[in-house]
Amino acid sequence: MSLTNSSPLEAAKAAKSASHVLATLPVAARNDALTAIHDALAASKDDILAANARDMAAARQAAADGTLSPSLVSRLDLGKAGKWEDMLKGVLDVRGLPDPVGVVTLRTRLDDGLTLERLTCPIGVLLVIFEARPEVVANIAALAVKSGNAAILKGGKESTHTFVAVAGAVAAALARPGSRVPPAAVQLVTTRDVIPQLLALDAYIDLAIPRGGNDLVRFVKANTRIPVMGHADGLCAAYLEASADPQLAARVVADAKASYPAACNSLETLLVEEAAVETVFPAVAEALVARGVELRCDARTKAAAQARLPSGGGDRVVDAAEADFDTEHLALVLAVKAVSGLDVAVEHINAHGSHHTDVILTGDEEKAERFMAAVDSAGVYHNASTRMADGMRYGFGTEVGISTNKIHARGPVGLEGLTIYKYKVRGAGHVSAVYGEGEGQKRFLHESLPL
Amino acid sequence: MSLTNSSPLEAAKAAKSASHVLATLPVAARNDALTAIHDALAASKDDILAANARDMAAARQAAADGTLSPSLVSRLDLGKAGKWEDMLKGVLDVRGLPDPVGVVTLRTRLDDGLTLERLTCPIGVLLVIFEARPEVVANIAALAVKSGNAAILKGGKESTHTFVAVAGAVAAALARPGSRVPPAAVQLVTTRDVIPQLLALDAYIDLAIPRGGNDLVRFVKANTRIPVMGHADGLCAAYLEASADPQLAARVVADAKASYPAACNSLETLLVEEAAVETVFPAVAEALVARGVELRCDARTKAAAQARLPSGGGDRVVDAAEADFDTEHLALVLAVKAVSGLDVAVEHINAHGSHHTDVILTGDEEKAERFMAAVDSAGVYHNASTRMADGMRYGFGTEVGISTNKIHARGPVGLEGLTIYKYKVRGAGHVSAVYGEGEGQKRFLHESLPL
Repeated sequence: MSLTNSSPLEAAKAAKSASHVLATLPVAARNDALTAIHDALAASKDDILAANARDMAAARQAAADGTLSPSLVSRLDLGKAGKWEDMLKGVLDVRGLPDPVGVVTLRTRLDDGLTLERLTCPIGVLLVIFEARPEVVANIAALAVKSGNAAILKGGKESTHTFVAVAGAVAAALARPGSRVPPAAVQLVTTRDVIPQLLALDAYIDLAIPRGGNDLVRFVKANTRIPVMGHADGLCAAYLEASADPQLAARVVADAKASYPAACNSLETLLVEEAAVETVFPAVAEALVARGVELRCDARTKAAAQARLPSGGGDRVVDAAEADFDTEHLALVLAVKAVSGLDVAVEHINAHGSHHTDVILTGDEEKAERFMAAVDSAGVYHNASTRMADGMRYGFGTEVGISTNKIHARGPVGLEGLTIYKYKVRGAGHVSAVYGEGEGQKRFLHESLPL
Repeated sequence: MSLTNSSPLEAAKAAKSASHVLATLPVAARNDALTAIHDALAASKDDILAANARDMAAARQAAADGTLSPSLVSRLDLGKAGKWEDMLKGVLDVRGLPDPVGVVTLRTRLDDGLTLERLTCPIGVLLVIFEARPEVVANIAALAVKSGNAAILKGGKESTHTFVAVAGAVAAALARPGSRVPPAAVQLVTTRDVIPQLLALDAYIDLAIPRGGNDLVRFVKANTRIPVMGHADGLCAAYLEASADPQLAARVVADAKASYPAACNSLETLLVEEAAVETVFPAVAEALVARGVELRCDARTKAAAQARLPSGGGDRVVDAAEADFDTEHLALVLAVKAVSGLDVAVEHINAHGSHHTDVILTGDEEKAERFMAAVDSAGVYHNASTRMADGMRYGFGTEVGISTNKIHARGPVGLEGLTIYKYKVRGAGHVSAVYGEGEGQKRFLHESLPL
């Protein structure tokens, strides 16, 4: 990794050249680079933690001045118990994942001596823009190298000193004798003003991955022709159907809403089948209020919640405004309304949701399948918490991010999402003109071969 | 299909709603619609050919006035021998393809009673902008319905009468009693001025597919936030290596250049290894000139070609300008230059090519593999004509287009390229909070299940 002082154009050109080298490296060479990165980080521990202490001091000052939220300060701390070890282990975990490159997904005999093969390959050059989490830069560098992609990284400015120190260690690792991964394969940029310039370089950068707040994602999507992978919103909904088991529903909804309200896979909307408002919903409302959730309800669900809860739920049960159903609260707030049935629920979710992860709570399998077919979201769940929407939980070993795109990669994205494919055709002088439907013309065999 | 007179926004909204219905239909309902479309077209043959005759008359007049090229006139003729039958057969061919929707590509037991499934699903709403080929509208309607996508279609204005007549037949098919595909699932727009408005509707349209000239593709890419699938250029190159068999190389290069020079998979550049200039290249040059190709050469290859050819090749062997190596000639013109070896050839192709399809001609397997790994193109070939880059030839049954994108779909795109996937999670009240690495927490099983 180089800490780049070159112009965005030079950086992107260098990344493109490096990507061409990276794409030809065997997995052993990419894994060796990850080992070297791990070792260089371990050897630079004192320097990196000293740099992190400078970021922390500046952040504490900013928090004291009221220009930075105190919760961010704690997130910046790489010295926190286990965080350093997790960062190093993360690099080795990525090294241990199966090679996502060179996987043959189609093999066809087109004719005698003429074969077609489709195999995965790196995308090329990634632009990854991420939040001020000091451990993330090593993780993203590892993902890029493992998948054979070059990457230009820009992290949140509050962690700049840490990022620069980490980048120095990674640069040393890639510059070691015998390294086959070019140092320009991973470049760190440290000033925010280059982002618009980088976003204009669609001739060199193949994919932009903004990780972080909704505003960042929207800004990136609005200001580039580079394809963007990510999600701006996580407006997840649950549909509570009359046949749902009340205790099951209460447990799932409470977990989905309250286990980590700031997460994109947390619940923001609860749609209650009218027939369930006075039967199943009260237990759910009780569980939510017990977890400190404020319910913003329409008239019917409000009345049902108040009837069940001591003192009518007090200030935990209030009136919903229309905007609550289009808002990602990211807090202990849930918008609740009654709907006449499944079709209306699906329509609401497809119109107001963010196509991230939505769940039906029902005892009726057939309705569950209908819901999962009709809801146009990356994740469609039956009787399970939306918080399961996560690359680690899905078993992908790592997560590049969560995508609500409709093309390429959707939902939690693992290393696979950093690959595309190419077709190799191997012949013995085969030409197109001899094939056709006419008399005397050859037919293609189109015979599937084992992968 | 409806011939839409509504505003672009209304059309896109109606298409989105229709896409939600389409996504839930079983393949039988989608195939039934294709049968109905086929039968309605057959029943409307006279009307459609009469409309086509009007387009033809206008086109002949325009050709006589010099405002339309005569080659386009012939392309507009749906009455040409076999064309009508091919159009109808095309609809049934698409019906006969395997269902691209609902294919399970991952199944994992996350925990007892908790399973994860990834399965293919339609993308949503497509915007397809295509050239004035009267048979194409039926084909694209068929592809959209088969893949469960709604589509808004805009065809070249020279075929408008034909398109409208075909749209009428398709609309009648989708409006028949018992039809489960909503008529708004396929909409035809007939005026070019709505294109910029449609390109702004990224909230409703999920993928734009421009099929046609480079200018159209560039215009679409430059004017929308909707993901675009396609290729602006087809600047394919061949690298002729010294160990290539001269007759094999001559046959392949002549086919790649001369069998259909207007195609995007035709050859535009020939890079000759220095060691091959006087050994292998002359036979290749001879074959090309015999096919009427003009060779635009650098000094070394020019001298070698002239030495071999009668009268030095006459005006078929001329000097290349630098721009010839960045130009898609789409004619019997080939840019030729000598390069020192494989690495320089790869570098040239990656820098000057369009990442479409490139070929190495060599007797050396190891060099072939190196070339195919290093060239960053959708198709990388060894000893076979670049003209093989085609969905039908690859055995995909149909072709949506050829993509030089680095994400989603690359190379010839079949029905698969019109799908994405969603994750279904089926649980029994599972919540996230109980899982973790800590003591007393549950671990995920992450057990692969058969597909």
